[in-house]
Amino acid sequence: MTTTGKQIFTTLESDGTLTVEVGTKEFRDPTGNQVLVKMEAAPINPSDLALLFGPADLENAEYSPGKIVATMPEPFNSGAKGRHGQRLPVGNEGAGTVIATGDGDAAKALMGQCVACVPGNAFSEYALADAAMCLPLGDHTAEQGASSFVNPMTALGFAETARMEGHKAMIHLAAASNLGQMLVKICQEDGIELVNVVRKQEQVDLLKGLGAKHVVNSSSDDFMKQLRDAIAATDAYFGFDPIGGGQMSDTCLKAMEQVAVTKMSEYSRYGSNQPKKMYIYGRLDLGPTILTPSYGFGWTLSGWLLTPFMANAGMEVIGRMRKRVLDNLTTTFASSYKRKVDLEEMLTKDAALDYRRMQTGEKYLVTPHG
Amino acid sequence: MTTTGKQIFTTLESDGTLTVEVGTKEFRDPTGNQVLVKMEAAPINPSDLALLFGPADLENAEYSPGKIVATMPEPFNSGAKGRHGQRLPVGNEGAGTVIATGDGDAAKALMGQCVACVPGNAFSEYALADAAMCLPLGDHTAEQGASSFVNPMTALGFAETARMEGHKAMIHLAAASNLGQMLVKICQEDGIELVNVVRKQEQVDLLKGLGAKHVVNSSSDDFMKQLRDAIAATDAYFGFDPIGGGQMSDTCLKAMEQVAVTKMSEYSRYGSNQPKKMYIYGRLDLGPTILTPSYGFGWTLSGWLLTPFMANAGMEVIGRMRKRVLDNLTTTFASSYKRKVDLEEMLTKDAALDYRRMQTGEKYLVTPHG
Repeated sequence: MTTTGKQIFTTLESDGTLTVEVGTKEFRDPTGNQVLVKMEAAPINPSDLALLFGPADLENAEYSPGKIVATMPEPFNSGAKGRHGQRLPVGNEGAGTVIATGDGDAAKALMGQCVACVPGNAFSEYALADAAMCLPLGDHTAEQGASSFVNPMTALGFAETARMEGHKAMIHLAAASNLGQMLVKICQEDGIELVNVVRKQEQVDLLKGLGAKHVVNSSSDDFMKQLRDAIAATDAYFGFDPIGGGQMSDTCLKAMEQVAVTKMSEYSRYGSNQPKKMYIYGRLDLGPTILTPSYGFGWTLSGWLLTPFMANAGMEVIGRMRKRVLDNLTTTFASSYKRKVDLEEMLTKDAALDYRRMQTGEKYLVTPHG
Repeated sequence: MTTTGKQIFTTLESDGTLTVEVGTKEFRDPTGNQVLVKMEAAPINPSDLALLFGPADLENAEYSPGKIVATMPEPFNSGAKGRHGQRLPVGNEGAGTVIATGDGDAAKALMGQCVACVPGNAFSEYALADAAMCLPLGDHTAEQGASSFVNPMTALGFAETARMEGHKAMIHLAAASNLGQMLVKICQEDGIELVNVVRKQEQVDLLKGLGAKHVVNSSSDDFMKQLRDAIAATDAYFGFDPIGGGQMSDTCLKAMEQVAVTKMSEYSRYGSNQPKKMYIYGRLDLGPTILTPSYGFGWTLSGWLLTPFMANAGMEVIGRMRKRVLDNLTTTFASSYKRKVDLEEMLTKDAALDYRRMQTGEKYLVTPHG
């Protein structure tokens, strides 16, 4: 038996034509420890947008009901040649009700429950998911649990990474995001000093309202001094950058070095011995990352991604993290949404241009069954 | 008692005036486990040039006997504000004869011997050095031992770092250098696969002549294909870059990812899970380092410097490395020099412009006593 439903597909042809459309998909019955979830809510995260649209030209695209045809500019089209011609599902995470299960005990135990899941095709009426990766939401609604994976696990992953690498403080860029707000609360709970970097006064106010101690505004004239002072106060020689392109990680490494140098007793042309590290975990800016030779050789810049982090962390740590998310789903890990759209509304020009801007506090929630 | 001798000093004023001159220095008698070395030979390494001249304008400098006055351009002058007004000695390494010692046994045992040392003021007639850091050269001459520290220990440090991090292959950029030639031999001896990247056919020939298996010419039209093929043949997802500025590390990470992607069974917009790492260990190019978002999140770029490496590696590893250098000083670790200069000749326009070009195979040796 199969279940038929609507699902979003994104297809990039080698000539740069990107087609994103609502299509029909047959879902086979779940087997073993699989479950079939009727998807009720799925957030549109930056990581979804990269696959859904990438840097395609949505302003000048052709819009028809349930369909967008756009052009992918170079060098991004060539850079994505691994996906050329493939009709790909989209949507990392979401939540809904388990309506069928395989024979496995873990799967059967979820029958009829509202669960959060990470199927990779969350922008869909139905999704097959592994029972082991499902989080039963108890009394919470699908909407409350829709964003319980990507942002919460990433924010908790930062705190775990800090602990694993021996840091008691960190910098976070673009810190007023949903994820950034979670991180403020996590760091408070875990006794980690957090330097939040934002770019607007209203974001400073927002984070201060959550109790954040160190909030630095990159639009201020004395931004570098603010940043150095916060690093000096916290010993934050370690941080996370969701922007990727440009010079914000470089700026942080520079400020760290300037603080470290003030603690040296004599000049060294190699710079300080203070190790400095930034992780890039997102690509809000797809431009190149620029590093200046202004902080010696004691620095590291690295990519950070949730999946390999979880593989390294192991099941016990993951289990602990997931329990913490569930226990605090409507407090620390609550997400808010600007607007709800169904699959067709998601592909209107008005909606697509709006959520693709990835503005802080303006996240969309997809409700596939309306 | 003191010994008086000539020494090179470099002074950068806050207005950007750089003065490099032969001055006079009083050396106090060594105490404890210190020795006083009559310096006979010291190489001019890229790491010395950074402190000696940096990116100062040597073409338009004022030259007088034993003195150069040049201008340091921005942003480098501001970036070096930690040294403003300080009259600094230069010269990481060299070799000579121990002419006085402190009371310590380790020091007294070196009396009269020819030793290599790392005094930080090697461009000098005399230098005080710690006995523990001196390498007794046995029957070798000071000239043979002058470069026995920086390049040999760095090249051996790369092999150690590869082992510590679980790699059996590495990429080396600007691989025809003295250091690069040492690395070819070390990797042969240690069974590490080495991908050498050079930029001229004569450098390809040179390294092939040393028995290098994989030599890639960045001036070739099919450079990227050559590089990918060499990575695919060796599994070199790890490498060392002495250039720093520009896109060569980026190019290596890109080629690594392109090879890794061919081994994936399905497309992931996050790229491959293959960890990729490049170390920048020099700054032959002082321009910014450019990283493009074209290899997912499984990458790391980091600075590498000999001193913190040695501090981490520990005395046993360092002792083993130094013994290996001494045992192979005229073979694997032999250095060659284009020209010998005394302290005054070192500061002539002709010489300074020539050795500052840091051309492969054109290293200068300073012989302070002529």
